[in-house]
Amino acid sequence: MRLSALRHACRNLPTISVPPTGTGVRVRSLPVGRTSHRLCPHRAAGSSSSTSSAGTARKFGEKTNETGHGYENTIRESVQRTKEEVVTLQRDQPALQPTLAIIQAGEDDCSLEINKKMAGKVGLNLTQICLPRECTEDEIVEEVLKLNEDPRVHGVYLHLPPVFLTSRVLNTLNPEKDIDGVSDLNVGRLVRGDTSQGFTPPMANAVMQLLGRHDVPLVGKTVVVVGSEGPLGVALQCLMQRGGVLVHNCHRNSEGLEKQVMRADAVVLLGAEHMDIPPTWLKPGASVIHCGSVVMTKEPEVKMSSSGVEPLTAALRMQNVVQSSSRWVQQQQYRPWVLRCLKLQPLSPVPSDIEISRAQAPKAIDLLAQEIGLLQEETEAYGRTKAKVRLSLLDRLRDQPNGKYVLVAGITPTPLGEGKSTVTIGLVQALTAHLKLNSFACLRQPSQGPTFGVKGGAAGGGYAQVIPMEEFNLHLTGDIHAITAANNLVAAAIDARMLHEATQTDKALYSRLVPSVNGVRRFSPIQIARLRRLGIRETDPSALTPQEVSSFVRLDLDPAKVTWQRVVDTNDRFLRKITVGQANTEKGHTRETQFDIAVASEIMAILALTDGLGDMKTRLGRMVVGSSRSGQPVTAEDLGVSGALAVLMKDAIKPTLMQTLEGTPVFVHAGPFANIAHGNSSVLADKLALKLVGEEGFVVTEAGFGADIGMEKFFNIKCRASGLRPNVVVLVATVRALKMHGGGPNVSAGAPLPKEYINENLNLVAGGCSTNLKKQIQIAHLFGVPVVVALNVFKTDTQAEIDLVCRIAKDSGASDAVPCHHWARGGRGSLELAQAVERASSQPNHFQFLYNQETPIVEKIRMIAQKVYGADDIKLSPEAQAKIEYYNQQGYGKLPICMAKTHLSLSHMPELKGTPTGFILPIRDVRASVGAGFIYPLVGTMSTMPGLPTRPCFYDIDLDPVTEEITGLF
Amino acid sequence: MRLSALRHACRNLPTISVPPTGTGVRVRSLPVGRTSHRLCPHRAAGSSSSTSSAGTARKFGEKTNETGHGYENTIRESVQRTKEEVVTLQRDQPALQPTLAIIQAGEDDCSLEINKKMAGKVGLNLTQICLPRECTEDEIVEEVLKLNEDPRVHGVYLHLPPVFLTSRVLNTLNPEKDIDGVSDLNVGRLVRGDTSQGFTPPMANAVMQLLGRHDVPLVGKTVVVVGSEGPLGVALQCLMQRGGVLVHNCHRNSEGLEKQVMRADAVVLLGAEHMDIPPTWLKPGASVIHCGSVVMTKEPEVKMSSSGVEPLTAALRMQNVVQSSSRWVQQQQYRPWVLRCLKLQPLSPVPSDIEISRAQAPKAIDLLAQEIGLLQEETEAYGRTKAKVRLSLLDRLRDQPNGKYVLVAGITPTPLGEGKSTVTIGLVQALTAHLKLNSFACLRQPSQGPTFGVKGGAAGGGYAQVIPMEEFNLHLTGDIHAITAANNLVAAAIDARMLHEATQTDKALYSRLVPSVNGVRRFSPIQIARLRRLGIRETDPSALTPQEVSSFVRLDLDPAKVTWQRVVDTNDRFLRKITVGQANTEKGHTRETQFDIAVASEIMAILALTDGLGDMKTRLGRMVVGSSRSGQPVTAEDLGVSGALAVLMKDAIKPTLMQTLEGTPVFVHAGPFANIAHGNSSVLADKLALKLVGEEGFVVTEAGFGADIGMEKFFNIKCRASGLRPNVVVLVATVRALKMHGGGPNVSAGAPLPKEYINENLNLVAGGCSTNLKKQIQIAHLFGVPVVVALNVFKTDTQAEIDLVCRIAKDSGASDAVPCHHWARGGRGSLELAQAVERASSQPNHFQFLYNQETPIVEKIRMIAQKVYGADDIKLSPEAQAKIEYYNQQGYGKLPICMAKTHLSLSHMPELKGTPTGFILPIRDVRASVGAGFIYPLVGTMSTMPGLPTRPCFYDIDLDPVTEEITGLF
Repeated sequence: MRLSALRHACRNLPTISVPPTGTGVRVRSLPVGRTSHRLCPHRAAGSSSSTSSAGTARKFGEKTNETGHGYENTIRESVQRTKEEVVTLQRDQPALQPTLAIIQAGEDDCSLEINKKMAGKVGLNLTQICLPRECTEDEIVEEVLKLNEDPRVHGVYLHLPPVFLTSRVLNTLNPEKDIDGVSDLNVGRLVRGDTSQGFTPPMANAVMQLLGRHDVPLVGKTVVVVGSEGPLGVALQCLMQRGGVLVHNCHRNSEGLEKQVMRADAVVLLGAEHMDIPPTWLKPGASVIHCGSVVMTKEPEVKMSSSGVEPLTAALRMQNVVQSSSRWVQQQQYRPWVLRCLKLQPLSPVPSDIEISRAQAPKAIDLLAQEIGLLQEETEAYGRTKAKVRLSLLDRLRDQPNGKYVLVAGITPTPLGEGKSTVTIGLVQALTAHLKLNSFACLRQPSQGPTFGVKGGAAGGGYAQVIPMEEFNLHLTGDIHAITAANNLVAAAIDARMLHEATQTDKALYSRLVPSVNGVRRFSPIQIARLRRLGIRETDPSALTPQEVSSFVRLDLDPAKVTWQRVVDTNDRFLRKITVGQANTEKGHTRETQFDIAVASEIMAILALTDGLGDMKTRLGRMVVGSSRSGQPVTAEDLGVSGALAVLMKDAIKPTLMQTLEGTPVFVHAGPFANIAHGNSSVLADKLALKLVGEEGFVVTEAGFGADIGMEKFFNIKCRASGLRPNVVVLVATVRALKMHGGGPNVSAGAPLPKEYINENLNLVAGGCSTNLKKQIQIAHLFGVPVVVALNVFKTDTQAEIDLVCRIAKDSGASDAVPCHHWARGGRGSLELAQAVERASSQPNHFQFLYNQETPIVEKIRMIAQKVYGADDIKLSPEAQAKIEYYNQQGYGKLPICMAKTHLSLSHMPELKGTPTGFILPIRDVRASVGAGFIYPLVGTMSTMPGLPTRPCFYDIDLDPVTEEITGLF
Repeated sequence: MRLSALRHACRNLPTISVPPTGTGVRVRSLPVGRTSHRLCPHRAAGSSSSTSSAGTARKFGEKTNETGHGYENTIRESVQRTKEEVVTLQRDQPALQPTLAIIQAGEDDCSLEINKKMAGKVGLNLTQICLPRECTEDEIVEEVLKLNEDPRVHGVYLHLPPVFLTSRVLNTLNPEKDIDGVSDLNVGRLVRGDTSQGFTPPMANAVMQLLGRHDVPLVGKTVVVVGSEGPLGVALQCLMQRGGVLVHNCHRNSEGLEKQVMRADAVVLLGAEHMDIPPTWLKPGASVIHCGSVVMTKEPEVKMSSSGVEPLTAALRMQNVVQSSSRWVQQQQYRPWVLRCLKLQPLSPVPSDIEISRAQAPKAIDLLAQEIGLLQEETEAYGRTKAKVRLSLLDRLRDQPNGKYVLVAGITPTPLGEGKSTVTIGLVQALTAHLKLNSFACLRQPSQGPTFGVKGGAAGGGYAQVIPMEEFNLHLTGDIHAITAANNLVAAAIDARMLHEATQTDKALYSRLVPSVNGVRRFSPIQIARLRRLGIRETDPSALTPQEVSSFVRLDLDPAKVTWQRVVDTNDRFLRKITVGQANTEKGHTRETQFDIAVASEIMAILALTDGLGDMKTRLGRMVVGSSRSGQPVTAEDLGVSGALAVLMKDAIKPTLMQTLEGTPVFVHAGPFANIAHGNSSVLADKLALKLVGEEGFVVTEAGFGADIGMEKFFNIKCRASGLRPNVVVLVATVRALKMHGGGPNVSAGAPLPKEYINENLNLVAGGCSTNLKKQIQIAHLFGVPVVVALNVFKTDTQAEIDLVCRIAKDSGASDAVPCHHWARGGRGSLELAQAVERASSQPNHFQFLYNQETPIVEKIRMIAQKVYGADDIKLSPEAQAKIEYYNQQGYGKLPICMAKTHLSLSHMPELKGTPTGFILPIRDVRASVGAGFIYPLVGTMSTMPGLPTRPCFYDIDLDPVTEEITGLF
């Protein structure tokens, strides 16, 4: 039974089934033992014949006299209709069990029996929360809150004495589950006539059904309502007025009551149980509907008899539960976005990035989440402008087709960068804020190091930014900090373990690793995993042979072959090479090692490639941290640390939702190094986004560095891992970079730009286009994906230069080539690009990998070098050769290749611009990220730790302690 | 004018003042230039004489005929009353400007003029948002959202054509600002009769006033309402029914309308502008109220004439704005808590900490925040169970008296710890969940290092915990990560600067530090601060003498005198002593240094002692990182990094709200080392909590280590910094620790407890009480604060042992001494303690510091050693002596003292238990945390970097990838 696990405390409570539908009823008494559940003592459990008290609804209708039979037909029809709706719902959603929860104080009464019976008849699951009669408001509120949050409960019926139906209780109940329509919000919805939300109170609905049961039009009829005060009366009146009924409200003691009744076509008695209308008052054919509202007094012995409309009321209550279930199902499914975009009024000249970011008030992040179809329980806010999104979304939208998948890559850049991030953001701003197409940008989280060093922020720029940019550029939601903590725990475990092994006997190690706790020695699950890898099947610690103990306790790491490095998220060049363990307490076990910048951690690469918690844990466990003296790889799981790593990373795995300057959604997630790792944002963010945008929507993701590196890795590594297929490549070019490739002088950060880059120079532009740009387009075509060239326009670019680039790009095979003005104008400046991308996405697509995974490592490297970089061949150093052999031995030969090469040239020589040819690519060394799942050949020396310049960015960064505004970030 | 900064875009718009009250009207047309504001063209701006169209309300009342004069009196009285309310409000809150915002589409119409005029009359501020007539729903929603979030706006009047008053628009409006009562929620509130929230629609209210204007009771009167559909009709009907009126609803075309009217005492025409009731229909004395609802068509030329009730409606609308302002003021003020506590059903035997934590569903953190009186804008959620609290709270509750301030300290502990955290949490659970007194626990955030090392979690234990304990023990809200980032940025800046100075000429350094940007050279503010410290007044970079340039560009740090260390939040013993800078790129500038655990950073001590952003920035800037070759201190500000540090710490400064197992509030904030720093949670958390609990409430905060260290620092350092005065000290003792002090054998982590600790041994207990416990009580009395001894009961403790401890404790001067069973029973187990604390808190209190700040450093150290530790004297090493002289020279002599001493003995020798006497305290060295603001003498060697044992905690820590449950944390 699905509800058997409903609440922790229920486990040992009895379960009873109500025939004939076989759905379950769950009874829970709270606190345990204070009260108990039993059947109604006053009458047999409500069979439909027991509802004949319906006869109190007398003589309604002009053409025929009412009989109990007609009333029962009404009920039967209602039940039948509701039952069919349940069947229909479950046909589409077999896992769905529409469920009504009842909160009651004290034992079942007859009215409750009727409702339970009715729930059974229509096929609802039932869960009963039985509070003691003398319970408190707090206890009721607590139960209501639990039911609010329980996704398995679709409706809550507060079967409580009026004294407990306080404003607090009624309004604590989630209006979406308030199937009696008693919360203020639902009362208001009914009054305003909003039928898309809220619920019609079942009793009011029952009265309307009784009034309208015949073919007589209600319009123009007069109904006297006695006792119409309160929400129920108001609801009834609204319904009647909408039906064209003239409503007269009376008190039971009203002076002119008799006269009023005599003129009426019907009389409804609300909450006036003991009142009767003398038949002589009624005009011929008039009826009386007697709604003893379902009152329970606090004394159980004075139970009110359930009134005539009650069975129908119960039936309609069940209908509301089914309506609620149906809405819940709809809510679970994909919905097209209704997105409120933020208006942009670009200034000229364009202010600084932080000024632009600060001038735009972002939408509350929970509002954005709601707009793009996220359920409340799927997001976790981090302040007002960031939220993590839970991976359960993937399961919910499993059957939803993916949107179009667009990669933004670049030509070989100058050291200043060519604006891939701004193009990415400008493109989604254009798609969503202007073309009204769903779109998502998926970005990498930047390292905090460079924010304070040379580079500044990475949230885009100008009028194409993620806001608030300072949140994007600083701690964000702590993912990189989590990576740092996880990475360094592994490092600490390695050195501590080497020390402990070096200073203890096998026996001492074993007694510490498998200690006796309360006289019992046991292996932990992680230790059993190691035993398995060692081929030891024994699980009794006392039964291991000394040999087995020794191989179990000694990882025997070779200090010279530890490949795991510590990390910090700071540009700290003095940590590039260090000696650790120099304190006396480490007894001379010093070792040379290094710190990398945090984003270079293999754990970051894993975060970017994983597709879920289980997979991440597996990858973390299999990370190789070094090898033993006998040449065996030693993993994080061997160190016993993999569970702790998963715990440290449990929140980091959830992508962070932010927004662009125009209020469109952005995922920020993962940011692996683009050389020793694959430099792409996370698979998970892309997957979530592809579901959220829907089939006609677009997900725009960005690859680091130029297309020769970032795009190649995106296809061969990321798409291979994710199984996703890209529809379009946007190739970003700038006139500046093209001029450099066409033969322009060197460009470097900090130095003024040579005049070639400021004045028109068509020759240089043409040179760059026909070399580097053309080659990069060809690379994309190798993978069978159409290319749109996006020329990121700078204010110094001339129209002739722009036209020239677009013409040559198209001549070189690009589907389209357009100038982009997002930096100065936001999404409006990228409209042409958005339209070009939309067109290209409907082109036929023949995506293919460059190489098969089974190809030998050396061949894979050669294919990349020749086909992508244009090298004549590769040359392996003896060290690289030896490593490849070792990796083949270890079974890593089928991993894809992640080249670590400069991004400043297609070749390995940064100074070679354009399309270098005739070179041999030297492979200095080869390394493996076994957890992330790739082999990375080193072409030249890669720095994994940036430094600080003489005047780092931080000189200008400041915080106003009063306004809390940040200055100096850019 | 307060509203002049209301919205960025308004800055250049005209402002007009409405006499005679002098309050302002702000007009904003959006988008700028699309429409403009002008006075109503159809009639003169509504002076009160222009409202004589009130004559359309004819002949109401039985005794007199109505005149326009009577109607005007009604308005005048209403205006007068509202005006007086404004004056009263402003007398109490001089800064308050009750403000109405109007959103309109198109130009002002006459109805709007009436409202503006009325706003002026009662003294409201007005802000007008003028959207173009052809605006979109999105634009309206955007404006509504901005007004929702603007704390200066108390009411919003949507003066829009019906086509714009969509469900989305009406329900986007914050119901607390919906002064027309049009949102679904407010309609529902009115129907249910909730007058404490929501607003009566002004027009319905106006009709009621007209009906009830005479001394004639309304009860029993009959009123016909024509056109009563919709929310306004419903509202009116509810109000009339509550007033005892019989209401008959009719359509304008109802058949029997004439007859109905003839019987009625009054007729109300709703939304039936062009209808007239022939006077012949009316019974003598009956009246007609004509409510042309304030309809504007989309065509401005077809303006409806404002109807009779409109001026009164406008007056009552203003009354609602004032009511809203008044509620806003009340909401700003302290409110007693209405706290829903979580029920606890302790199991026996007590399950593991994580099992207990997981079994309890925490309240949503925003709910808890609301319960304890935090405003929505004062919290920033981090997921579902943690929220940061903004410091603006301190300003809002400035005038609120503080609660009682309770410190939990301990006797000298065994190495296993004696449970101060559990006592702290048990105490607040008892105070709030059981005694129903407001209370707050303020805890330190634990370092993540030990969580994975030996110690495990620090969220309390058993049934006295902070939940979810895994959130508490892991990243929390990232504060320690922020400290790590800030600390290491300083470290990177130090080494990089030394390298740059060593490898560049003055000129090169100067041109890089003060570069020419677009041809202009400028000092940044942080550089100007350095110039000031150097005594250079010149601010033109080109005007400095070479001498000045040199002293400006060269910090000339002595590598041997750098005191700043890097940190990680990992137990990484191999970083205790390292050599950095060994890569070729660092050109041989190697240096020996170390990493500390992150919580040992001076930045953590600053976070714990600061009282706001400005102060934190100052303290960060003045941190001394080392000294120059000439012996001058070099600060973080000299490095140019202080602004960046403040930026990195901007979120960390906000305390994190969590909850106990019983749903009572907890602040977690800061966790400085208890030896080289002061080991207390933050001043800010305590200050916020003291305001939130209110005068009768309790804030329970905890000091690290034994009372000789933690408590002494709490008083002399933390209370000195905060200005707060403690009311009670709770001194935690255990039978185990007392037995150890009474002469029991050694206790150590991991080893089984000797039998003395398991079996009853009254002698050992008595010995411990009369030595260590007695001494610690005396220490608290030195500071003039009453002491309650809390005996943290273990299951092996016998009743005789418990009784003995309590007796001796009271004999030794404790106000009270009680056993605590919180670990096994939660708050219920600490009831006695809670009552004892409550009693003690009302005792007279003579708090005093142990020493005056002006006392020389050596004397201060001696006073602590003699009076607190019981030493005969102190002995300074020559190094310590020299340092003290240096600090005196530098002006640090007045800083308080933060002793770095073992916590395992009152003396400096951990093995000396009980009350050691006759010893000389050796001071090995003296250091200064100038930013945090204390001098710390080192007594013996203090490790600032823990290590990992052979089998760290992480072996048992794991994450279930499906349920996401964590195991192995304890």
